Amino acid sequence: MNLPGKIAIIGGGTWATAIAKLILNNTDSINWYMRRKDRIDDFKRLGHNPAYLSSVKFDISRIHFSNNLNMTIRNSDTLIFVTPSPYLKQHLKKLKTPLYNKFIVSAIKGIVPDENMIVTDYLKKIYNVPAENLAVIGGPCHAEEVALERLSYLTIGCADTERAKIVANMLNGNFLKTSISQDVEGIEYGSVLKNVYAIAAGICYGLKYGDNFQAVLISNAIQELNRFVNAVNPIDRNICESVYLGDLLVTAYSRFSRNHTFGTMIGKGYSVKTAQIEMEMVAEGYYGTKCIKEVNEKYNVEMPILDAVYNILYNKKSSFTEIRQLTETFR
Amino acid sequence: MNLPGKIAIIGGGTWATAIAKLILNNTDSINWYMRRKDRIDDFKRLGHNPAYLSSVKFDISRIHFSNNLNMTIRNSDTLIFVTPSPYLKQHLKKLKTPLYNKFIVSAIKGIVPDENMIVTDYLKKIYNVPAENLAVIGGPCHAEEVALERLSYLTIGCADTERAKIVANMLNGNFLKTSISQDVEGIEYGSVLKNVYAIAAGICYGLKYGDNFQAVLISNAIQELNRFVNAVNPIDRNICESVYLGDLLVTAYSRFSRNHTFGTMIGKGYSVKTAQIEMEMVAEGYYGTKCIKEVNEKYNVEMPILDAVYNILYNKKSSFTEIRQLTETFR
Repeated sequence: MNLPGKIAIIGGGTWATAIAKLILNNTDSINWYMRRKDRIDDFKRLGHNPAYLSSVKFDISRIHFSNNLNMTIRNSDTLIFVTPSPYLKQHLKKLKTPLYNKFIVSAIKGIVPDENMIVTDYLKKIYNVPAENLAVIGGPCHAEEVALERLSYLTIGCADTERAKIVANMLNGNFLKTSISQDVEGIEYGSVLKNVYAIAAGICYGLKYGDNFQAVLISNAIQELNRFVNAVNPIDRNICESVYLGDLLVTAYSRFSRNHTFGTMIGKGYSVKTAQIEMEMVAEGYYGTKCIKEVNEKYNVEMPILDAVYNILYNKKSSFTEIRQLTETFR
Repeated sequence: MNLPGKIAIIGGGTWATAIAKLILNNTDSINWYMRRKDRIDDFKRLGHNPAYLSSVKFDISRIHFSNNLNMTIRNSDTLIFVTPSPYLKQHLKKLKTPLYNKFIVSAIKGIVPDENMIVTDYLKKIYNVPAENLAVIGGPCHAEEVALERLSYLTIGCADTERAKIVANMLNGNFLKTSISQDVEGIEYGSVLKNVYAIAAGICYGLKYGDNFQAVLISNAIQELNRFVNAVNPIDRNICESVYLGDLLVTAYSRFSRNHTFGTMIGKGYSVKTAQIEMEMVAEGYYGTKCIKEVNEKYNVEMPILDAVYNILYNKKSSFTEIRQLTETFR
């Protein structure tokens, strides 16, 4: 493979649009798969994504749009998967093209529902993609701020350091700095868990806990996250790096994050179902909570925050009581 | 000494008032030194501190007020120092009573100006107080939330673990949980440095850096803080504990912190002098920056955030340029 070769974006949401903007600063043209033909038509007509980050203008002569996933994949060498994690499986079901000989970068923040797998594990196990062909993009990065050209930092995880650098060079720019890492699993699990902790932060906010407590919650959350990723992938890592701690901070301290909002509604007394109907969507941390809870049956890491969120979301336990018990475990 | 014995609060500000409230939940009566006689008279008449946390009611029959520092100290066994750090020296100059035979708890957040010393070092060196007679109170704790009875956590640092527990038991309550630690120096230096980083966060906010960047800044700040306290007091500590990381978070993420506000004005282009005049006070991190910068001449720890803040505040360097250079060191 001569990487990156032809780059394809798979997905048409906010984060996909931000990543496309970054990559088009460094490369002449890209392929871009979106599921909906009407969205592609509107994009071409308007010169921007009609549904997300519409302030970001694109030179559409440099984009080969397609709503045919197999064609996009056949015509590309590097695939950047950036669909919402709940839809990944149904996208991939359409595949008639092999994936094992492509370089795949997952920018999906979340796990594959029903499978309890992070995305790279799923692609390894189900699609036989070798580890050196898999990379992840992590770090504290609201897409909206990338659109506004506010300086942001991303970390590229890949077992193969040279390939991590290739992805980094695809994204680097005046407003986007990159680091590389070999901790693919730690980055992916961290980015799932931070959504769980953002739900926890929202629940506590809804229950009227204050800023003093939130700081204690986050301090305990990063320690819990560290214990978990050390059990799953025991390497020498500094959990205070921005790809772990920063990602947790930007999510859990954002009152605009969907996970935080979802948690706040639960903390205020909404049922899970009502909160989901009100939000017209499911917060990713809802799936992440169940996934990590089940994965942790194997590792038995002490995870009181995860357990509390799980009991509240899946066992109909009172958030008041669960969080009060949780406070006894903190220091 | 039969500790805690008679407890005295030295200082009449917000944090002193919050600590008095906590202690009076656990003990019958306290001595309370305030500099201003008129404030004491108003306090007695109103049943609350006339200037700070006025919503907190006190049973004044359980408080022995005095504006005579020597008398208060003579009549007390445990002294809780909770004056603003810039005024500590001038309070202590009035002393005719020895301190070496008292148990002293510092709840002062900051260093002793002109001396480049944390408070416990100052009391050791100038007043011959032995280490086992010195304790510190740290942790993420806005006094206002203690007044509102929002659950908060404090950590008591003391070389003597049994004495740390005595202080913890003085403060413990339904809304206040305590931990103990032997890392007196780490806690004190951490609580000085967090103010420096809150100024940095404010400067970046004033310069219009976004939430993505703030998360990266804080991630790099806690690593810098860790490097420094490891150099000064090399013990096995977990920097993610709430007494270090939590304290940094509650300060740097608070738009209401004086240090953050001061930094924001600097970032928006105010001169240091103008910002101080506008705020009608000096943010503690202003002194802390100079102190740590000078202490670090001995240790030579890599501290790019501290250096940038120092250059901006003391060398009239442009915040735009200093922070842009700083961004190159982050990951």
